[in-house]
Amino acid sequence: MSETEESLQPSNKAILKALAIQLGVVQREAKELNIPTLVIVEGLDASMKGQILNQLLLEMDARTYKVHSTHASDSGANKYPLLNQFWKNTPARGMVQFLDRSAYYLVLDAWAEGKISDGQVDNYLEYIRQFEQQLHDDNVVVIKIFLTVSKKEQSRRLTKLEQNPKTTWRVTAKDWKRHRQYKSYLNTVTKFIDKSDHDFAPWTVISTDEFKEASIQVNQTIINRIHKEVEAVKNQQETEAIKKNWVPYNGHDYLAEVEFPGPMDRVEYKAALKEKQAIIHDLVHEVHYLQIPVVMVYCGSDAAGKGGCIKRLLQGMDPRGYDVIPVGAPTKEEFAQHYMWRFWKQMPRQGHISIFDRSWYGRVLVERVEGFCSNEEWERAYREMNETEKHLHEFGTIIIKFWLHIDKETQLERFKAREENPLKRWKITDEDWRNHKQWDRYIECVNEMIANTNTDYAPWNIVASTCKMRARLETLDTTIAALKAGIKKYKKPVM
Amino acid sequence: MSETEESLQPSNKAILKALAIQLGVVQREAKELNIPTLVIVEGLDASMKGQILNQLLLEMDARTYKVHSTHASDSGANKYPLLNQFWKNTPARGMVQFLDRSAYYLVLDAWAEGKISDGQVDNYLEYIRQFEQQLHDDNVVVIKIFLTVSKKEQSRRLTKLEQNPKTTWRVTAKDWKRHRQYKSYLNTVTKFIDKSDHDFAPWTVISTDEFKEASIQVNQTIINRIHKEVEAVKNQQETEAIKKNWVPYNGHDYLAEVEFPGPMDRVEYKAALKEKQAIIHDLVHEVHYLQIPVVMVYCGSDAAGKGGCIKRLLQGMDPRGYDVIPVGAPTKEEFAQHYMWRFWKQMPRQGHISIFDRSWYGRVLVERVEGFCSNEEWERAYREMNETEKHLHEFGTIIIKFWLHIDKETQLERFKAREENPLKRWKITDEDWRNHKQWDRYIECVNEMIANTNTDYAPWNIVASTCKMRARLETLDTTIAALKAGIKKYKKPVM
Repeated sequence: MSETEESLQPSNKAILKALAIQLGVVQREAKELNIPTLVIVEGLDASMKGQILNQLLLEMDARTYKVHSTHASDSGANKYPLLNQFWKNTPARGMVQFLDRSAYYLVLDAWAEGKISDGQVDNYLEYIRQFEQQLHDDNVVVIKIFLTVSKKEQSRRLTKLEQNPKTTWRVTAKDWKRHRQYKSYLNTVTKFIDKSDHDFAPWTVISTDEFKEASIQVNQTIINRIHKEVEAVKNQQETEAIKKNWVPYNGHDYLAEVEFPGPMDRVEYKAALKEKQAIIHDLVHEVHYLQIPVVMVYCGSDAAGKGGCIKRLLQGMDPRGYDVIPVGAPTKEEFAQHYMWRFWKQMPRQGHISIFDRSWYGRVLVERVEGFCSNEEWERAYREMNETEKHLHEFGTIIIKFWLHIDKETQLERFKAREENPLKRWKITDEDWRNHKQWDRYIECVNEMIANTNTDYAPWNIVASTCKMRARLETLDTTIAALKAGIKKYKKPVM
Repeated sequence: MSETEESLQPSNKAILKALAIQLGVVQREAKELNIPTLVIVEGLDASMKGQILNQLLLEMDARTYKVHSTHASDSGANKYPLLNQFWKNTPARGMVQFLDRSAYYLVLDAWAEGKISDGQVDNYLEYIRQFEQQLHDDNVVVIKIFLTVSKKEQSRRLTKLEQNPKTTWRVTAKDWKRHRQYKSYLNTVTKFIDKSDHDFAPWTVISTDEFKEASIQVNQTIINRIHKEVEAVKNQQETEAIKKNWVPYNGHDYLAEVEFPGPMDRVEYKAALKEKQAIIHDLVHEVHYLQIPVVMVYCGSDAAGKGGCIKRLLQGMDPRGYDVIPVGAPTKEEFAQHYMWRFWKQMPRQGHISIFDRSWYGRVLVERVEGFCSNEEWERAYREMNETEKHLHEFGTIIIKFWLHIDKETQLERFKAREENPLKRWKITDEDWRNHKQWDRYIECVNEMIANTNTDYAPWNIVASTCKMRARLETLDTTIAALKAGIKKYKKPVM
């Protein structure tokens, strides 16, 4: 800090002071309007990223922002798909989230180190684009700042750091190597920036050779972007009513094709169950040994028997290898985030199994039927879910999705039976009855969901579930097949 | 699982089924009464801990429990004091938290490996005792189960695991080594259990040679303990009103001794500030390099200038090395936990600085004054805070605590000045005015707090803050001295 104070002109200082006040004002406005902001700060070595960030944060109310730092060798984060740590650190409504370095840095670093090919780079940049677009669509202001420094100034700063015995350890051989290759590295960076400069998330490149001037530019960039969004939201509120009227689906009727088989013999069932569970038991150990992540999604009509299927799956599994995630209405904290956020928080690390009892598909089912989200929101959700599942898949994740299907009469019978059983009565709620009345709309939703999200990498398995025993065995069979196939073709991801 | 099914007698199976139902019933009662339960499951190698746990969880509603697994070589957790990961995983009100192994295992493992001395073992067991007592006092049911297995059966199980190609990797040389030393290892374990068997958190030791019988015992233990607490809470609700009447403090008046110095020269201030910040800058780098964790606590009267002091501290620091934690009213999620939980979540890892803007001392200040907790609760909080800070200190954490003191008239003046400034008006709330009226009670609280929590390892620094410039410089001076002293005597903790 002190080195730059020298070059300080009174006018720059006054400008910074005024900008700090302006930033506070605009951020309080954004908070009131529930606008979230993501600020990504990347930069060359010795571009004073830390100081620029610090100068910004010092003027902000600590209750309004969070900072997440990204490290190339974070052994915790490395066990998850690239975007996981960034999804976990998206801004809540009204908040500012700073990313001190981000996925860009990780990709750039891996590329510079020769760990990934050009093609892989494009693939990762595409994930990042999807991430930014999804947030943008959810009204997050995405601000991306890249700090540069001239070769001469970089040399001066690195030397200064190195000469101070307290900071000398911060300068590594890698820094000097990159310094020597300054020109070609800058070329690479420029390509990166060009490729990832989007209308909805543009880069602002700022030279930091003059520290205060750089600070001013950073402040102005952030203020302008937030201010623009504040104005946009104000205008929007006045003009546009959010569309929630029912959009019928007239495409293929998958559920109509489901045939419901008759009941099965209990003794036969028990024998088959035991046999399949033993196979699952061994496969799960293999999955853990190979460090493959597994995502299982159990969706289905109320009372279709999701819980019973999950229970039969878990019998014989080691509880240290899986998590069951019961999905209900979002909490207040979850509601203040993009709808995928709470699921990203539960995605499995390598070698672990996340079992979702209901899932993100609630967006295009209950949220659509009940009008909890607008038509634009659930319509784009299909693409977002596919993007998410593809990202997981390319990380090596085995994805198994079930839709447990029963007919309307069976649901009614099971609801009544539950109400008559004092030990199961707590399971049934007014909401269940409300959903039952909306049966036809749910069927439309499910069909449209399957039509739009039945992919090679994450196919739907529709399970006829009027006979609970058959449904349980079928989900186990599907699981066995999917695990075997996934194990066979598994390759450890590079990053 | 299948191996044990063979030895199954119909009566045992029926008992287990009945117990599963009973567990569901008793847990729903506990949930309604907001009773949290912590179940610690420890055991010898091959004591079928995983299977026992699984069998339990399968019968429970997944929305009512969480599982945390403890690993000896968890590089993430190892950067924090022993209890950190367990504090982060305490049960919320109404919930059950299972610990699949716990701090006991970590201590036992380090001891068996010769990494820590007998004296250190006792020290760590004392931390765990404090942890359990603090939870117990907060109405958490603490259930501790130790699973054993005979030497003969252990050998049989290890061999069986080893012979299955899918599970052979689970059996290590360490397992067989411990098997050969079965008798002496069991002796050690027995001593451990004796030492950590407390009235409020007793051990239940269960042999697992017969799997179903062991399962029955585990179920019964948990049901009995929760049921007992349910009954106790029901009775308590009827009889006892919680005491919240004002308890005056008549001890030493520390604040009366504070002398308020006159104003200082701004030019002089600026020069001193710059000089001290440069020293802090270097010390913080050293702290990071040595991987020392630092906890800073800024408490003080409203408008005493905490924010300004923190800001002067941060100027010139690298934002990647610290977190500022603004402490306000707890969220719903935080309120459902022990009051220390939200602070444990923010404690620094090695090499990191956590700066608390207000802190856990709110328990004995605002919560006491406003009657948000009972007299018993804030009275025992002094001991709990000392225990917490001692645990942090012995992990090598540097602890710096400030109380910024102003007089009542200065507070009034500053409140009025804020109200007149349109850019600062948002900072002042009705709550501030309410607190101002309670001035004398707060003074009593602060004096009692200092009397009870001013320890060698975490002393209070009372800072006269009517002159903001002097207060800022003094907090910097204190910080410099504390960091220097901490760096000088720092030794890397064993665990």
